[in-house]
Amino acid sequence: MKNSLKRIFLYRACLVRLKLMGVEKVFSLTLANETGVTPDQVRKDFSEFNIRGNKRGGYYINDLLEKMEKLFHANKDNNIVLIGMGNMGLALSKYSKFVQRNMNIVATFDIDPFKQKIRSGIPVYSMSRLQEIIDRFRVKVAILAVPEISAQEVADELTRYGITGIVNFAPVLLKVTQEVIINNVNLCDELESVIYYVHKQMNANGSKNLELLYKDMKY
Amino acid sequence: MKNSLKRIFLYRACLVRLKLMGVEKVFSLTLANETGVTPDQVRKDFSEFNIRGNKRGGYYINDLLEKMEKLFHANKDNNIVLIGMGNMGLALSKYSKFVQRNMNIVATFDIDPFKQKIRSGIPVYSMSRLQEIIDRFRVKVAILAVPEISAQEVADELTRYGITGIVNFAPVLLKVTQEVIINNVNLCDELESVIYYVHKQMNANGSKNLELLYKDMKY
Repeated sequence: MKNSLKRIFLYRACLVRLKLMGVEKVFSLTLANETGVTPDQVRKDFSEFNIRGNKRGGYYINDLLEKMEKLFHANKDNNIVLIGMGNMGLALSKYSKFVQRNMNIVATFDIDPFKQKIRSGIPVYSMSRLQEIIDRFRVKVAILAVPEISAQEVADELTRYGITGIVNFAPVLLKVTQEVIINNVNLCDELESVIYYVHKQMNANGSKNLELLYKDMKY
Repeated sequence: MKNSLKRIFLYRACLVRLKLMGVEKVFSLTLANETGVTPDQVRKDFSEFNIRGNKRGGYYINDLLEKMEKLFHANKDNNIVLIGMGNMGLALSKYSKFVQRNMNIVATFDIDPFKQKIRSGIPVYSMSRLQEIIDRFRVKVAILAVPEISAQEVADELTRYGITGIVNFAPVLLKVTQEVIINNVNLCDELESVIYYVHKQMNANGSKNLELLYKDMKY
């Protein structure tokens, strides 16, 4: 994901919070302060993503949110398939925020006949029906939540059937053609990075305390 | 997460794959090619994170992996608490990769007495026991999987009890003091970014096809 797009998500989260607080208009300076960038950066990002607004009196929050909405949902076709109904797949299939943001998981798939009997809002099919469902719902985006050992094989199958975007939860680097967009969500990496920074900070504080201790000792 | 740390994760994923393929030694050039950066960048990142190896004949993969391991698990104390046992929390509590990578969720918490009856490998406690458990297991890192409406309140409580790192799955920007490290995993953003790029590419291809069409038409 490009850093500018990440910042757009950050601005949006800020705008949503401001809106909940009853605020109607916002300056790029406010957004900059809230997200830790410069007002210039905010305006540059808005211009990159073609988000325009009346700068003199500030931007209307509703207006900005609507424009951001259009960025991601220009086509009304946000049909998604989810492959792998293990613990993570099941949780993702039930994640209500996707629907609230107009992203519809139209079908889920698993090789395990037992999992095909799961009864939730969304049907669970066998993998043999993958192509049929992708074609019928004109699906372009898939969520991959299969074990790492089968991730590459399933990714190959998905792209063969016309999928061009994959959110991959399996902790493997998928090999795909250049046209296919992959977004890896590696839960271990996310947790390990926090652990890394926490330890680093503890060590830094430890050294600082040691320094203070030496200063106090006055040989 | 810093981009250099992200690349370390990427190198590690490559190394794991190479190791599975039976490769024993690797050059920075190989890692660079596999991850789309320059060999200089690889060496610079290694040096930033104090990862050293015999450069002349290449790095030993096992050696690199061991050094990366130490980055994240220098302290053996990787005890973690998980707050919120909804669908996502439950899936995370069962995520076996965490244990495989020496990250132990020692306890989970939920305000719902019904969820406190969930029987899996890890106990589910009421929130009233949060401080006691954090103290007993000397926990520094928490996974936050509560609804967005209670995320800030729970984050405040966690930091009050000494938590300094949070992986936050609630789609809100948490306000915390500077010492607290937050890593946001926003599932909607991850999915929307893929949708954005897929649509962008489809539109680009659409224009290209239109151009070709016009060329062919030869007014």
